[in-house]
Amino acid sequence: MIDYTHVQKIKESSPLIHNMTNQVVANDVANGLIALGASPIMAYAEEEVADVASTAKALVLNIGTVTPDVAKSMLVAGQAANQHNIPVLLDPVGVGATRFRKQVVKELFSSISFTAIRGNVAEIATLAGVEWKTKGVDAEEGKGSKAEIAKALANEKECVVAISGKEDVLSDGEQTYIISNGHAMMGKITGSGCLLSGLAGAFLATKVDSVLAGLVNAHVYYGIAGEKAAGRVDVKGTGSFRAALIDEISQVSKDEIEKFAKVKEEVQ
Amino acid sequence: MIDYTHVQKIKESSPLIHNMTNQVVANDVANGLIALGASPIMAYAEEEVADVASTAKALVLNIGTVTPDVAKSMLVAGQAANQHNIPVLLDPVGVGATRFRKQVVKELFSSISFTAIRGNVAEIATLAGVEWKTKGVDAEEGKGSKAEIAKALANEKECVVAISGKEDVLSDGEQTYIISNGHAMMGKITGSGCLLSGLAGAFLATKVDSVLAGLVNAHVYYGIAGEKAAGRVDVKGTGSFRAALIDEISQVSKDEIEKFAKVKEEVQ
Amino acid sequence: MIDYTHVQKIKESSPLIHNMTNQVVANDVANGLIALGASPIMAYAEEEVADVASTAKALVLNIGTVTPDVAKSMLVAGQAANQHNIPVLLDPVGVGATRFRKQVVKELFSSISFTAIRGNVAEIATLAGVEWKTKGVDAEEGKGSKAEIAKALANEKECVVAISGKEDVLSDGEQTYIISNGHAMMGKITGSGCLLSGLAGAFLATKVDSVLAGLVNAHVYYGIAGEKAAGRVDVKGTGSFRAALIDEISQVSKDEIEKFAKVKEEVQ
Repeated sequence: MIDYTHVQKIKESSPLIHNMTNQVVANDVANGLIALGASPIMAYAEEEVADVASTAKALVLNIGTVTPDVAKSMLVAGQAANQHNIPVLLDPVGVGATRFRKQVVKELFSSISFTAIRGNVAEIATLAGVEWKTKGVDAEEGKGSKAEIAKALANEKECVVAISGKEDVLSDGEQTYIISNGHAMMGKITGSGCLLSGLAGAFLATKVDSVLAGLVNAHVYYGIAGEKAAGRVDVKGTGSFRAALIDEISQVSKDEIEKFAKVKEEVQ
Repeated sequence: MIDYTHVQKIKESSPLIHNMTNQVVANDVANGLIALGASPIMAYAEEEVADVASTAKALVLNIGTVTPDVAKSMLVAGQAANQHNIPVLLDPVGVGATRFRKQVVKELFSSISFTAIRGNVAEIATLAGVEWKTKGVDAEEGKGSKAEIAKALANEKECVVAISGKEDVLSDGEQTYIISNGHAMMGKITGSGCLLSGLAGAFLATKVDSVLAGLVNAHVYYGIAGEKAAGRVDVKGTGSFRAALIDEISQVSKDEIEKFAKVKEEVQ
Repeated sequence: MIDYTHVQKIKESSPLIHNMTNQVVANDVANGLIALGASPIMAYAEEEVADVASTAKALVLNIGTVTPDVAKSMLVAGQAANQHNIPVLLDPVGVGATRFRKQVVKELFSSISFTAIRGNVAEIATLAGVEWKTKGVDAEEGKGSKAEIAKALANEKECVVAISGKEDVLSDGEQTYIISNGHAMMGKITGSGCLLSGLAGAFLATKVDSVLAGLVNAHVYYGIAGEKAAGRVDVKGTGSFRAALIDEISQVSKDEIEKFAKVKEEVQ
């Protein structure tokens, strides 16, 4: 399952990734994608998103600061991507927080086939229609296990579902993987999940093996980059960690992936 | 007046702070709030801001890159916050620069009761209707003293007014405090005032003691974080200072506050 | 041609630079301008951009994440700047990527006289109506040389044209200069061209000598700042490079400019 081919392909082909993301993290997503070897493009105007999405190799929709205008553009971009068989990833940031975000996501689902959905457990549980009590960013209490929620949503939406947390849970509805890479500091910078969604777009763009394999490798790669950044002596807090994380995204090696990857298949 | 309880409460309860801020500083505000221990949320769509503001523990309105759409959303968010007794802080960025910003602020004042207003002396003087000549960011020349301006606006708007500068001046109309913490480098990064407004939202959310005490403690805490960052040997200019400032916002201790706070009451 | 007077004038007069830039790079542009000694202001609302542009010393229009609303505001701002003889610089980010961006730029050209246009070779070739094959950010293959393209567009639009790349090519239609400063890492952070456009606005604001001289000095200054940042031992990747670049923008000395500038005139 763990395979450096994705990263090699990204570095060789520098795929164009169309990001419709939130204004808080746009800079980190762009710098992270360049560090990885991909080419980011941000475009939001309804008049151009179909042009951009159909020449890109992947489209990432992130509703973190979505407005009605951008939601409309996302519909156009997603449909264009679907027509051109370009992978589309949804990051349903804060979908449980407001009726508006729920409505936006509902409309996106009604018009777009998603290749993957990535979020924290509260967001994914909301989409799966499961009650989940969150206290802080990543609570562990709720009805049903994370693996069950990921699997159920993957089956319902016919896509890969990734739940980020202390342990990441990824499922395509058949197979489910648990990834234990990463570091607590990643949860202490804004948009670390949004950044992963951006990077995951590049892994999907390579079309190596399955979508599930792409997402698993994205999570492992990013988790190890975070571990390396957190271990640096020049990191004195979250401000310097943020810069270090971008540094490390450019330089996780094949050896480090093979040595440090913590992935297991959930056998049910 | 100086009291670490605010910081302890923020770290314990991780209050949700709704920021409607400008697109230049959104990332710094979010990372600064997380570093402090709070939970930032940015949301701008008219359709959702009432939902967000009424579940948040404080609302911060910053007009730095305001548009008519966002101004309309701010009215909705502010009214929702007022209805739920949630503190609302206004940062009137550049209000003296254009007729449009003056008009936006006028409409905000006509519909929203603010808990606090924080800006530089030119911005606060504009709101107070006092002439003030600025040359650079923080001029000292003008009619009347800063303390008089802060006090007058505080009485007119029935809220706490904070003027940032080499010395910060804070007044609730009765009591006035002068704070001399901080470092010149803070004026050399964009949005250092906007970041303070975001952090101040978290101090207001704790509802320890008075609003004035919350604001005084926010200014002292932030000023000392800036002093610590500026003193670091790995800071080589404003780019590395910006990262160091976020680092230090997470780690100002009770002892440091007690030792380094420079606060005096203005006796008139 | 190389002259530190621009930088001295910027540091003395701290000119206000109105930036209508994209949301990915707004923070870097603002911090870079402050580091250089200028005062950035970002403003986008149609209701206020004429007020801002006419009190600013230069206006920079960057279409990186342009929407129809912002395009409309850019027209208003550019016309106000023209009326007040304030220099206007265009950064046509990704103009070749979509019909919408081409249309936006066409409208800007029909209503605004530009002082300068700065972009990469693909963007400038698109504006000049020349075919250019890009593979990656800065391809060298195409019909005609970069110098010919820059000169042709400069003559057509009666302004200075700057093409950024491994070698920068700047022309006012008569004289053409080649600048070889800079470092490959600058191409590995998002918006390094956008940041240069922002800084170039400040050089234009000084009105020392000719527009061409202003642009040449901006490119040299920025290139040397990048070389200094890339040479620092505390730079471990693009995340820390980005912070170091802002650091260095504040501290390139007259001596360093004289010693390290790599400028030659293209003799045809």
